[in-house]
Amino acid sequence: MANTFGTLFRLTTFGESHGAGVGAVIDGCPAGIVFDLELLRRDLSRRRPGQALTTQRNEPDEPEILSGLFEGRTTGAPIAVLVRNSDQRSRDYAHLADLYRPSHADFTYSKKYGVRDHRGGGRASARETLARVIGGAVARMLLHNQMPSVELRVAVTTLGGIVAQRDVAQMAPAQIYASPVRCDDPETAPAMTALLEELRAAGDSTGGIISVQADGLPAGLGEPIYDKLNARLAAAMISINGAMGFEMGAGFAVGNRRGSANNDPFVEAEGALRTGTNNSGGVQGGISNGMPLRFRVAFKPPSSIAIPQQHGSGAGEVVTHAIEGRHDPSIVVRAVPVVEAMTLMTLADLWLMGRAAVNAGLE
Amino acid sequence: MANTFGTLFRLTTFGESHGAGVGAVIDGCPAGIVFDLELLRRDLSRRRPGQALTTQRNEPDEPEILSGLFEGRTTGAPIAVLVRNSDQRSRDYAHLADLYRPSHADFTYSKKYGVRDHRGGGRASARETLARVIGGAVARMLLHNQMPSVELRVAVTTLGGIVAQRDVAQMAPAQIYASPVRCDDPETAPAMTALLEELRAAGDSTGGIISVQADGLPAGLGEPIYDKLNARLAAAMISINGAMGFEMGAGFAVGNRRGSANNDPFVEAEGALRTGTNNSGGVQGGISNGMPLRFRVAFKPPSSIAIPQQHGSGAGEVVTHAIEGRHDPSIVVRAVPVVEAMTLMTLADLWLMGRAAVNAGLE
Amino acid sequence: MANTFGTLFRLTTFGESHGAGVGAVIDGCPAGIVFDLELLRRDLSRRRPGQALTTQRNEPDEPEILSGLFEGRTTGAPIAVLVRNSDQRSRDYAHLADLYRPSHADFTYSKKYGVRDHRGGGRASARETLARVIGGAVARMLLHNQMPSVELRVAVTTLGGIVAQRDVAQMAPAQIYASPVRCDDPETAPAMTALLEELRAAGDSTGGIISVQADGLPAGLGEPIYDKLNARLAAAMISINGAMGFEMGAGFAVGNRRGSANNDPFVEAEGALRTGTNNSGGVQGGISNGMPLRFRVAFKPPSSIAIPQQHGSGAGEVVTHAIEGRHDPSIVVRAVPVVEAMTLMTLADLWLMGRAAVNAGLE
Amino acid sequence: MANTFGTLFRLTTFGESHGAGVGAVIDGCPAGIVFDLELLRRDLSRRRPGQALTTQRNEPDEPEILSGLFEGRTTGAPIAVLVRNSDQRSRDYAHLADLYRPSHADFTYSKKYGVRDHRGGGRASARETLARVIGGAVARMLLHNQMPSVELRVAVTTLGGIVAQRDVAQMAPAQIYASPVRCDDPETAPAMTALLEELRAAGDSTGGIISVQADGLPAGLGEPIYDKLNARLAAAMISINGAMGFEMGAGFAVGNRRGSANNDPFVEAEGALRTGTNNSGGVQGGISNGMPLRFRVAFKPPSSIAIPQQHGSGAGEVVTHAIEGRHDPSIVVRAVPVVEAMTLMTLADLWLMGRAAVNAGLE
Repeated sequence: MANTFGTLFRLTTFGESHGAGVGAVIDGCPAGIVFDLELLRRDLSRRRPGQALTTQRNEPDEPEILSGLFEGRTTGAPIAVLVRNSDQRSRDYAHLADLYRPSHADFTYSKKYGVRDHRGGGRASARETLARVIGGAVARMLLHNQMPSVELRVAVTTLGGIVAQRDVAQMAPAQIYASPVRCDDPETAPAMTALLEELRAAGDSTGGIISVQADGLPAGLGEPIYDKLNARLAAAMISINGAMGFEMGAGFAVGNRRGSANNDPFVEAEGALRTGTNNSGGVQGGISNGMPLRFRVAFKPPSSIAIPQQHGSGAGEVVTHAIEGRHDPSIVVRAVPVVEAMTLMTLADLWLMGRAAVNAGLE
Repeated sequence: MANTFGTLFRLTTFGESHGAGVGAVIDGCPAGIVFDLELLRRDLSRRRPGQALTTQRNEPDEPEILSGLFEGRTTGAPIAVLVRNSDQRSRDYAHLADLYRPSHADFTYSKKYGVRDHRGGGRASARETLARVIGGAVARMLLHNQMPSVELRVAVTTLGGIVAQRDVAQMAPAQIYASPVRCDDPETAPAMTALLEELRAAGDSTGGIISVQADGLPAGLGEPIYDKLNARLAAAMISINGAMGFEMGAGFAVGNRRGSANNDPFVEAEGALRTGTNNSGGVQGGISNGMPLRFRVAFKPPSSIAIPQQHGSGAGEVVTHAIEGRHDPSIVVRAVPVVEAMTLMTLADLWLMGRAAVNAGLE
Repeated sequence: MANTFGTLFRLTTFGESHGAGVGAVIDGCPAGIVFDLELLRRDLSRRRPGQALTTQRNEPDEPEILSGLFEGRTTGAPIAVLVRNSDQRSRDYAHLADLYRPSHADFTYSKKYGVRDHRGGGRASARETLARVIGGAVARMLLHNQMPSVELRVAVTTLGGIVAQRDVAQMAPAQIYASPVRCDDPETAPAMTALLEELRAAGDSTGGIISVQADGLPAGLGEPIYDKLNARLAAAMISINGAMGFEMGAGFAVGNRRGSANNDPFVEAEGALRTGTNNSGGVQGGISNGMPLRFRVAFKPPSSIAIPQQHGSGAGEVVTHAIEGRHDPSIVVRAVPVVEAMTLMTLADLWLMGRAAVNAGLE
Repeated sequence: MANTFGTLFRLTTFGESHGAGVGAVIDGCPAGIVFDLELLRRDLSRRRPGQALTTQRNEPDEPEILSGLFEGRTTGAPIAVLVRNSDQRSRDYAHLADLYRPSHADFTYSKKYGVRDHRGGGRASARETLARVIGGAVARMLLHNQMPSVELRVAVTTLGGIVAQRDVAQMAPAQIYASPVRCDDPETAPAMTALLEELRAAGDSTGGIISVQADGLPAGLGEPIYDKLNARLAAAMISINGAMGFEMGAGFAVGNRRGSANNDPFVEAEGALRTGTNNSGGVQGGISNGMPLRFRVAFKPPSSIAIPQQHGSGAGEVVTHAIEGRHDPSIVVRAVPVVEAMTLMTLADLWLMGRAAVNAGLE
C-alpha cells in the first residue's frame, strides 16, 4: 500500500516537508535485536551530509524512539521513530500555492487529491526519504545479527556524464561516505565535485547513476514469479524520488548481447559451484545464486533549479518563474544512503519470507 | 506474495511447464464486464505466434473458463482460466534432473526449495507467462469498459544491437503484431528477422529491448511513495522471466543530463496544461500527469542455446553440455504480449485503487 | 481479500455451484511435504457423507491436482486442485432467476453486483466450502510434518437444542466422523439423528453448535494486536456460510463471571507451568499458552426449507414460494470438516508467521 | 499484519503502556475530509471517562496530529497521531519483571518473544486501544462525509449477570455515554453501577456483554467469502483485549432454532423490500442487506484483581501474589468506544472496498 513498504519486515511512514515531522513505524522486526542508536544517527547523517554540495536545511534530524524497545533490544512490537522538522519556513512557499513547478509532483498531486500541501512538496518532498533511512537502519541491525556476512557497497558511479573508472566492487564503504560525491574513485571524484560546484553557481542541476554491490548473500533468497528479488529491488528503487531507471547485472547492455556471451557458466571454486561471470547480477529466476548482487539506479537531475522555467498555474496558464532558495545540484549524492536503506529493507523482508517458507518438509 | 500479482485487481497463477497445465485466477474484476473470449484467444495466440522464429510447441493453448462468468459477463466472483499442457515431453528432460543449466533458475530453485521439478524449468518456465497474458486480457476488458481512451503500443525496438529507427509512438498496434519480430519498422524489422534466423542456425540467442507507450491515460493514476505507478510498473516488468532493466522516460540517459534540459516545462494545449517534453515518461511523484506513459524493458538473450556450455551438477561438479531441442533465439519477441499484459494489469489495479481513494470529501 | 484466505499459507478459491467446478490454489506451503492424496479424498468425503441426513448430490467430488507436486512432494510452487461439478441441474433453478430466497445471499449479491448467478446460489453456495476443505487438507499435511503433536477434535455438541453430554475433549476424532451427526456421544447422538429425520420429513431445518478442541499446540503461536490467534479464528469461522457466533473458552458465559473465578491460575505440572483451568481457551493476549485451544461456533438452520416462505422479487414484490428439491435439515453436520479445515489453515498460517518472526536475535 | 488493521482504510499502531506514548497512523483516508479535532478529543475522553468506576491514570490523552492535514482537511497522506504517556510509573511494575500474572499476556509474550516489556503489560496493555479510538474517530469523519445516514448505538447490555431490559436499539447514543456504565437503561444501570462499586471494594472484577446496532447502512456493503462483513467484524471485535465471544443477530440462540422460525421473510415497506425479522443481524452471504447491523461482543472480567492469585515465575514456579494498584472492575465499560471504533473502521474499509469494486460494467 502507498505508505507501507514490505511484507513481513514492514515500514510505514508519515510526515510532510513542512509539518510537525517525519516518522517511521517498523513492524515485523524480530525480538531480541540490539538497537544501535548510533548506527541510526550515522545513517541519518549520511543522508544529510552538511557539505556545501547539498541543500542546507538547519535541522539536526535527531531521531526520537517512541516505541518497540526494552532495555536496549527490540521486543517484537512496532518500532516507531519520529524526527521533528525544526526548520519549516512555510513562508518561503506561499507564492507556490497556486503554481505547479515543472517536473515536480505539484500538478499530479493536485489532480489526484484535489487538495495539496504545497509547502516544500508536502508528502512528495525528498524529506520523506529520511523515514526510509530509519527503516534501513533497523534492517541493517537485523541483518548484522542474522546475515553478518552481507556487505553492501553503494556509490555514485556516474554524475553529469562523468563516469567513475573504478568498479563499485573496488570501493570501500567508509571511503564512499568520506567522499563529498559518494564516489571512492580519486580519479573522477574531484571532477564530479567540481561539476556540482559549477552547477550550483549556474543554478542548474545534473543527473547521475548509483551502483550497488552486495557481497555475502546466501543462495536462495527471493520468492519466485511476482516477488522476485530483482522485481522487489526494482520497485524499491524506482519508488525513490527521482529514480528513472533500474538494471540488474549486465542490464540494458543485454540488448546487444549473444546468449553465448551473456550466460554465466558454472565454475568450481573451493569445492562449491559459482559462476565465472556475473551478468545476471547474482539473481536467477528471481532467487539469489550466492554471487554478488549487482544493480544500478539512475536518478534524474533535481527539478528545482534557479534558472527561470515555465510553471503551470491552477487556472491553467503557463507562468515563467524562477524557483527561489538554495537547491541541491544533484539528487544522487543524498540518494546513496536511501538506495542502501531500500536494499537493506528488501533483503531483510525476503530473508524473513524465506525463513518462513524454505524446505520445511526436508529439515 | 510470490504467486499473486496486484492489490485490488489480483492475479493468482499456478502451473508448471510439464504438469497438467497453467492457470490463472483473477480476483477483483468488477461485475458486469462483458467477457470477450476471442480477445483472450487473440492475446494468447500473440504469445505463441507459430512462426519459424519461435519455439514450436505443439499446443493449442485453448483456455477453459472455469468460473466467474454468467450469461457472458463477469459477476464479481473470481475468474479462473485453465490452459492444459498437451505437449509435455517429460522424457526430453530426464537427463537434466541433476544438471543446473547456466543462467537458468535450476540452481537457485534447488538451493531454495531442496526439491525441484526439473522438467522444462517447472514453475520457472516461460510457460508461466501464459497466465499473465490471461490476466492482462481480463484487465484489457475492464479498461475497455472504464478507460476506453487508453491505447497501448508495445514493440521490440532493439534486437541484438539493431535499433528501430521509428519511435514506438509511431507504430501501429496491429502492425506490430503482424511483424514476426514485433517491430513496426520496415527499415529495421527485416534485419532483425534475418538476425534471428542466423542465430537459430548458429544455436545462439540474443537480447533486446521492448518499448511501451500508453496514450490516453488520465492524470491522477498511481499511489504515492511506495506504490508509485512507475515503481509498480518496474516490479511488474522485472518480474518477467529474463527482464534485466527498466527505465521510465529519459531513463538512464539522465545520468548525463542537466535539469534545465531534462525538466518538462508546462505548455498550454487546447485550454489545458500539458508538458512540452516528456522526459518524465508521463509520471511525476509516482502519479500519471496525463502525458503518454513511456518506458522500456531490457530482456537478456535466452539462456537455452545449442552451443555447449559449462553446467553445474548436483554433486558440485562442472559439466560441459549442449542443451538439446529447438529453442527461441530471443525472449523479447514473445515477451511483447507479456509486457503488454503486465502493463494492463498494473493500470487496472491502480485504476481500482484510485476509484476507492480519490477526493471523497470534495465530490 | 475476498477470495483469498491467509497471509503466508494462502488459499485462493474459485467456482460456483453450477459452473464448471470448484477450485483451490494453495500458495505458501513449504517445499518437501509429502502430499497425501488419500487424506485429501477422506477430508472431502467427510464434507459429503452420503448419508440420508444430508443433501444427495450425485457428485464424486474427485480432486484433480493441477500443479505444485513433483514425485509426490510439494515443491514450494502453488498447489492447484480442481473438483468438477458433475451434477449441475441448472434447470432446477430457472424459476429462481428473479426471486430472492429469504435469508439467502440472493438479495445482497444482487444489490452489490447488479448481476447474479442464481443457479444454486452461485458463488455463495455451500459448495464453495469444498475448496476450504482442500486447503485444510494441505494445511493438515504441513502440520503433520511440522507440529505432529497437534490433535484436533471438532464435533457437533448442540443440535436443535439437544446438547451433547460429553465434552468434545472426550470425543474420539474417528468416532466423531463415524457418527451421522458428527457427535461422539452415544447418549445424545441418536436423538440428534432422529431430530434431523423428523425435520427432513417436515421440510424444516435446525441450527446447532460445533465445539473445537486442539491439543498439543506449542505456546507462542499467534501474532499480537490485530492478528491474534483468537481474532484470526473468529474471522475464519464467521466466514463460513451460516456461522452466527464464535466464542473462545468460557465465551459468552463471562458476562456473568467474576475475575476471581474466571482467571486461570498457574499450576506446576511435570516441571512446567500450565494453568489449572482453561477459561481463556488456550489463548492469552492473542497468543497460545500451550493449553488446549477451545472454541465454539454457532450455525443457523439452513434457510432452504420446503415450507412456503415470503420471497422477494426483482420487482420489489413479496411472493410466497416453497423452495423445491431436497435440502439438508442442518448445516452443522457438514460444517464439521469445514470448521476443521479453517482451523488447520489458521494454525498453519500462524505457524509460518511465527517461524519468520520469533526470537531472531536470541537464537 | 499484527499491528496494521484494514485493507484500504488502514490503521497502523505503536506504543507501549510505559513507553513514550501510543500512536496511530491512518493510511487510506481519502483527501478532502474535514478533520474534526474536537470529535477526536471526545472519542478519546469516552475511553477514559474519569469516573470512580474506572482506573485513574493521571493522563490527559491529548492527541498531537503529526501529519496528513492541510488547512483543516485530509490530504490523502497518512494521518499520524501521537498521545504521550505522562504517567509512566515504571517502578510500580519492577516486582513483576519475573512474574506471569494469571490470564494476562505475560507468559505468552515471554514464550513468543523471549524478551518482554513487563511494565504495565507493555504492548499488550489496554492502553493500546487508545490508538484504535483514534482510527475510529477518523473513520467516523469519513463516514459522516460519505454515509451520513449511518448511526451507531453501542452499549453495555449485560454486566456481571445484570441484563439490560431495554434493547440497544432503544438507547440514545448521548445517553449511553452519559451513563457511567454505558447503559441507557434507567432500570438496570444503577444496579450495574452498584455492582462495580461493590467489586472495586472487594478487589474483584466482572465480565459483561456489549451490544451494537448500526442503522442506515446501505445494502451491498461487505465482500463475499473470506472478507465477509460479519467475518471482518468478528476479527475486529475479538482482536480487542479481553473479548471472548462474538455473535451476529440471533447468534448462539440459533442452536435451538428451526429454519421456519429463524429465516427473515421479505416484506414490503415504502415500496422497497426489507425483512420482517432480523435474525441475520443485517448481513446475508457476508453482505449487508440494508437492515440494522446487529451484533454482540462478550468481554471477560479484568484479570488484574486485588485478591491474591497463583502467578507463574520465570523459573517455572507458582507464586501466590496480589496485584497492587487500582484496577478497573470491568473492561466492558471502557471497551464501548473501542467496539465503536473497530466497527467504524470496518465499515469505512469495506465502504472503500465496495467503492472500488461494485458494478463497474453496469454504470
